[in-house]
Order: sequence, then C-alpha cells, then structure tokens
Amino acid sequence: MKIIEGGVTAAKGFEAAATAAGIKYQGRTDMAIIYSEKPCKVAGTFTTNVVKAAPVKWDRQIVESKQKSQAVIVNSGIANACTGEEGMKYCEETAKEAGKVLGIDEKGVLVGSTGVIGMQIPIDKIKAGITELAKGKKADLASGTEAAKAIMTTDTKKKEVAVTFMAGDTEVTIGGMAKGSGMIHPNMCTMLAFITTDAKISKKALQAAMSSDVEDTYNMISVDGDTSTNDTALLLANGMAGNEKIKEGTPEFDAFKEALHYVNETLAKAMAGDGEGATALFEVKVVGAQTKEQAKVLAKSVVCSNLTKAAIAGHDANWGRILCAMGYSGAQFDPEQVDLFFESCAGKLQIIANGTATDYSEEKATEILSQEKVTAIADLKAGDAEATAWGCDLTHGYIDINADYRS
Amino acid sequence: MKIIEGGVTAAKGFEAAATAAGIKYQGRTDMAIIYSEKPCKVAGTFTTNVVKAAPVKWDRQIVESKQKSQAVIVNSGIANACTGEEGMKYCEETAKEAGKVLGIDEKGVLVGSTGVIGMQIPIDKIKAGITELAKGKKADLASGTEAAKAIMTTDTKKKEVAVTFMAGDTEVTIGGMAKGSGMIHPNMCTMLAFITTDAKISKKALQAAMSSDVEDTYNMISVDGDTSTNDTALLLANGMAGNEKIKEGTPEFDAFKEALHYVNETLAKAMAGDGEGATALFEVKVVGAQTKEQAKVLAKSVVCSNLTKAAIAGHDANWGRILCAMGYSGAQFDPEQVDLFFESCAGKLQIIANGTATDYSEEKATEILSQEKVTAIADLKAGDAEATAWGCDLTHGYIDINADYRS
Repeated sequence: MKIIEGGVTAAKGFEAAATAAGIKYQGRTDMAIIYSEKPCKVAGTFTTNVVKAAPVKWDRQIVESKQKSQAVIVNSGIANACTGEEGMKYCEETAKEAGKVLGIDEKGVLVGSTGVIGMQIPIDKIKAGITELAKGKKADLASGTEAAKAIMTTDTKKKEVAVTFMAGDTEVTIGGMAKGSGMIHPNMCTMLAFITTDAKISKKALQAAMSSDVEDTYNMISVDGDTSTNDTALLLANGMAGNEKIKEGTPEFDAFKEALHYVNETLAKAMAGDGEGATALFEVKVVGAQTKEQAKVLAKSVVCSNLTKAAIAGHDANWGRILCAMGYSGAQFDPEQVDLFFESCAGKLQIIANGTATDYSEEKATEILSQEKVTAIADLKAGDAEATAWGCDLTHGYIDINADYRS
Repeated sequence: MKIIEGGVTAAKGFEAAATAAGIKYQGRTDMAIIYSEKPCKVAGTFTTNVVKAAPVKWDRQIVESKQKSQAVIVNSGIANACTGEEGMKYCEETAKEAGKVLGIDEKGVLVGSTGVIGMQIPIDKIKAGITELAKGKKADLASGTEAAKAIMTTDTKKKEVAVTFMAGDTEVTIGGMAKGSGMIHPNMCTMLAFITTDAKISKKALQAAMSSDVEDTYNMISVDGDTSTNDTALLLANGMAGNEKIKEGTPEFDAFKEALHYVNETLAKAMAGDGEGATALFEVKVVGAQTKEQAKVLAKSVVCSNLTKAAIAGHDANWGRILCAMGYSGAQFDPEQVDLFFESCAGKLQIIANGTATDYSEEKATEILSQEKVTAIADLKAGDAEATAWGCDLTHGYIDINADYRS
C-alpha cells in the first residue's frame, strides 16, 4: 500500500467541483459534486439515529438496491433533517436536476446534507448550484480538494486522503474526503465521508469491506457524544483500474481492506482531532483485554467522558477520571489490575500500576499532555485483545461554537 | 405533607456538625457528621460504576446487613477511590475512631467521601476531625446547614430540604442534604445524599421506598454524563417519631414515599441546577409515551446531550438537537408525530408540531430560554406514560472548573 496525494479525484475516472450556492453560508463554497465517468457500485453505512435526515433515507434506498451511481451532490449549511415530506421531495428534485444537467440516470444520484436541523433546503439555489458544479467538474486533485473544502461546516481543516495498492499486477486507488466536526459520536458514523475507488469489485465485497471497517474507524471516534441525524459514509467503485474483479476471501480483498482501512482511519482521526473547539487529538488504546468488544467499549467510554476531555484541555494528568470512565462503560474488568500510561511525542510515562498511582512526575505528565496528539494506554493484563478510540479535548471553543450555532 | 425548614437535623434525635480538618481544602469546613441519639435502620443505593470507592464498599456491607447505624462521617476533598487496600483500611480506621470517640458501635459507622480520585486520605487529619465533630454536634437546624456546607466540592449552593407528614396521628419528619456537582450522571446516583427520618419503619420498607424513588429522582439527573465512583444515597431512620411501625402496602407507607420523593426530587433538582458552571436548570418532560421506561430513556438522552446543553447556555431554541438526542437514545418513537414546547416563567411556546417547525417567534423562544429554569416538553402522542429528567446548560464555567480541578 502506498500513500499518495489527493482525495476523491485520486482514483481513475472521478471528477469533482465546488461552488458557492449561498445555501446558508455566504462568501464561501457550500456545494460539491463527486462525479464518475462510469457508473459505480455503491456501499454505504448510515446513522442509527431514529431521526434520519431525508438524504440518509434517500441514499439508503440506493445503497440497498442494485442501482449504480454516477454522482453525489452535497451541500453544507442545512441538514435537511426533520423536514418531513418536503425534505424528501427536495432530495428527489436534486437527483432529477442532476440527472438532467449531467445526462446520467437520476435514480442513482446520491445526496448529502449537513448543517442546521429543521430548516428547509432552498431548492432553487441547489438547482442553480448543480448547473455550476456540472460546468466546473474536473478530474484533477485540486478539484477534489475544493470539494473537501466545500463540505466543511465548523471544521477548521479539510479532510482528504488517498492510497494505492496492487491487486495482482494492477494498481488500484482509493481516495476519500470527510467532514466533522460537531454532533460527532458515530454509530454508524456521525459525519459525512465519501470514498472513491477505481477498483473492480463485487458489490457484496464492497459493502462487506466498508461495513466491517466502519466499526473500527468512524464508529470509534467521538467529539461530543451526539449521534447525528445525517451520518453517512459512502464508498463508490467505478471499476476503471482494470484489475480482475475482487471477491471476498482473496488476497486482493485483504489488500483492498487494508487500503480502505487506512483511508477510513485517517479521515476518522482527522475528524476527531478537528472536533469543535479541539486543541488536541486524544487517542485511547485499551490493550490486554479479554475480547475486542470489551476493549472497544472501554476505549470509547474514555474518549466520551466530558471530565476526561476537560482534563486533557488543561493538560492535567487526572487519571482517576479515566479509570472512572472505564468503570461506568458497562464493560467488566478488574480495576485493581489496570496499568495506565500517557504517551505523546514528548515521551511515555506510567501513571497507574495495578489500579493505584505510581510515583510519577506531574511535571513530565503535563509536558506529555501538552502536545497536539496525546495517547492514554490502559493495559487490563487479562488477555490479548485491544482497541483504539479517538476523541478530542473539551474547550471553551466547543461552547462558543454551539451556544449560538444557528446565527 | 408539609415543607419545613432544615435538613438532616430536622427529624427528631438527629444531630450534626462540621469542621475544617484540612483534608484538601484550606480555610473552609471539609468534614461533617450526622449523628442519631438512637441506632438507625439504614437503606442505601450506590454507584453502578465498576470502579467503586472504598467508602461505597464499606457502606454497602452495612446497608446489606442487619447492622444499625448511629453516625455518618463525611469528608470532601478526597474521594478515597482507586486507593486499593489502604483506602479500605482508612474506612475501617475512621469507623473505629468514631466508635471510640462517640461511644457507639463502630461496625455501624457509615463513611462518605468526595473529591479527587486516587489520592490517599490523610487519616490523622480525619481522626482529629472526628474529635472536633463529636465535640461540636448539635440538634439545631443551623448545625444541619453547616454539615450541608461542609460536604460541598464544586457546588455553589448548599442543598438541604425537610418535610413532615402524618403517619396515622403521628407527625413524622424526613430531612436531607446532598452535594453535586460534577461527575454527575447518576446510575444509581452520582453524588452524596444523606436523608434522615424519625419514622419508625421496617428495614424492608425503608429500602424499598428508597430504591424505587432513586430511579425517578437522582437517576434522572445529569450534569456531564460521568457516573462517579463514589455515588451514595443513604437513608437513616431512628424511629423516634413514635408512630406505629410503617409497613409496605399501607396508606402510611404511601405517605412516607410521597414525603421521601419530595425530599429526593428537591435535592436532585438542586444538584442539576447547580451543575458545574451551570447558569440554568434544564428540565425535560416526555409525555404521551407508551411506557414510562421509553419516556425516561428519551428525557435522559436530551439532558445529557452536550449540543443541546450548549444551545441552552446560548438561549438558542435549536430544537433539532433535542429531536436528534431523542433519536439516538435507543428508544423507539415516531419523530413525525412529536410536538415540542419550551416553557419557563416567561411563558410557553410550541416549537414543533408533528416533527417539523411551527411558525414560532425566535424572539419569544429566546426570552423563554433566558430564565433560570427552562423546560422542554416533548409529546409523543402515543400513550399516557411520562417521565422527567433534569440537567443544566454547558458553559465555559464547566471547562474552567474541570480543566484544572486538581490544583
């Protein structure tokens, strides 16, 4: 596997564009297109929230059918959630317009929305935006980057990544873009992520790879514990790499999964580290667990703890909060056997041995916790399973962004 | 039932005192005693956190035995959690010292601790404190208030309440005190609450009344989603009111439960409203539910949502976050049937009808949400069950308190 430049336009046959449609934001781009020369097989995972945004319902029926897709139309600013029948009608109109303007099958047009819940989409602006996107779409890497910027809401950094791997003798590319950065507590995943690949792969294998990898990547991050109404991760494969068709249970499928995992994990970590108001990426590894499920529940509970996140913001080695968050996670473990370490580019320090404090240096601990990426490692010493979760610190910035998000 | 002045010393035969033992805080009281002239039956509920503080383990074995109790010794500043065998030994030494100084059965001495996790209790200071508390204890209401102040950590207000009710011809009193205000996500309850009563009541009825009421009071509040290692609610009954012994299934038991509920609910709401950094008590009522359990899960999910809490801090009627938090709660409901109202002393306003926004006035909504107590009422229109949960807004103050709690 090789890491390369680019995002959604890195794979063969994919184009992208962005435009300022004035959906809600002014003076910036707020609509994006991903377009494929050839129709794509589509895999996807969606929010488990009972309240599902209209685009989630729209995209899900495409993913669950045999329908191929050639375009994704995304807007930022308005979520099109809690918008009733009108909201669904706007998805339909968006797809119809894109089908007409692009000359593609409208039934396969995927729609993504993110932003304020409850407002109706200004469909005329969306339609005008589609015309601009159709005119502007290009296959170069810069166009992928423009699309990644257009889907940002409270994100401070665009998020994109691309890799290649060899399927037999053929080079296959996977690239993706995503946005966070509030209402992030994936289950499936609380964000929008769009992954493109030129792999030729069976639809079953495509969905299987995506569904299982989402569990270890997007579903292991949390910014604020709020599972969104709009979470969507889509994976489009247009088959243009020219490889022999990838099927489950083959070495090529393993290579595909490895590459996809790198793309998903990179985007997931970028979302966590760029959480609303965040100043640090907070990584929690639980090792020595009896089962992976136990390790996941424990790691996720720690990255979700407001108290722990506030301590990370203060560079305070308040390890009791970590043990406390493990304790209320719902997973069983022996607290009196736990070893805990803090690690960052400034070093590694053991804080707890067998459930009680070591004689560690608070000064060194603070130095370790003052870096942009900090890791807590909890060793249960009970088995070989492990899991990693990613979150961020909780700061004034989060409050500022969310006390007045709508104005 | 009648609401009266006072707290833990309101009921007959109970005394209290506070002292500045210098456990962690300087220049303020940090130890308290509740003492009963006669041995009490004890009911209690404790944290469900796997990581249990030493005093939780200590008290639980007393509650689960037939042991009566005559005193509770509480310290604030250090939680005595994650302190291993040494922590348990300190509970034992505390009880032994109190037994000796007070001339009571040491096996029945209850211990409560709250504060930093992981530090060892300075047992010499505790012992010196016990001597002061034994000298100072009095039955007047002011001494109860002093005790309520001494157990505060980041609380800004002392929390106490008392009521009387008639058991047959006899007046019975129930009083209590509690402390919050961070690591509050009760399950059982994430705080310390101490309730005293002079009721004569069977131990079985006492525990039954407490256990069921905790579900609707302390377990329905949340400040930050963090379930503490130290949660303890104790109910001591010394029988000195002189009433006929209260048994389950009688009108007197119903009267006892009603009075106990008022005490518990008042303390629970006080904890939520005085959450770390809070500027408002945020009440969420779910009505028209099919089952009470469904209503509870939905109400609790909303008061726990960081995004909703930040919106309340900003007096922003961002109702989509409320519907979103209901959606990820795990409870099933039809979002397209929900009506939502905001209410406070400034009025009541319908925000959503059948899952989509009404044409409400944002100005009026902001006025309603700018009060010290704000209520959101969600009507599922699916049945007759209802439940209420209490939380608070999420502010800079929470971050300030918790980014640097230990120093």
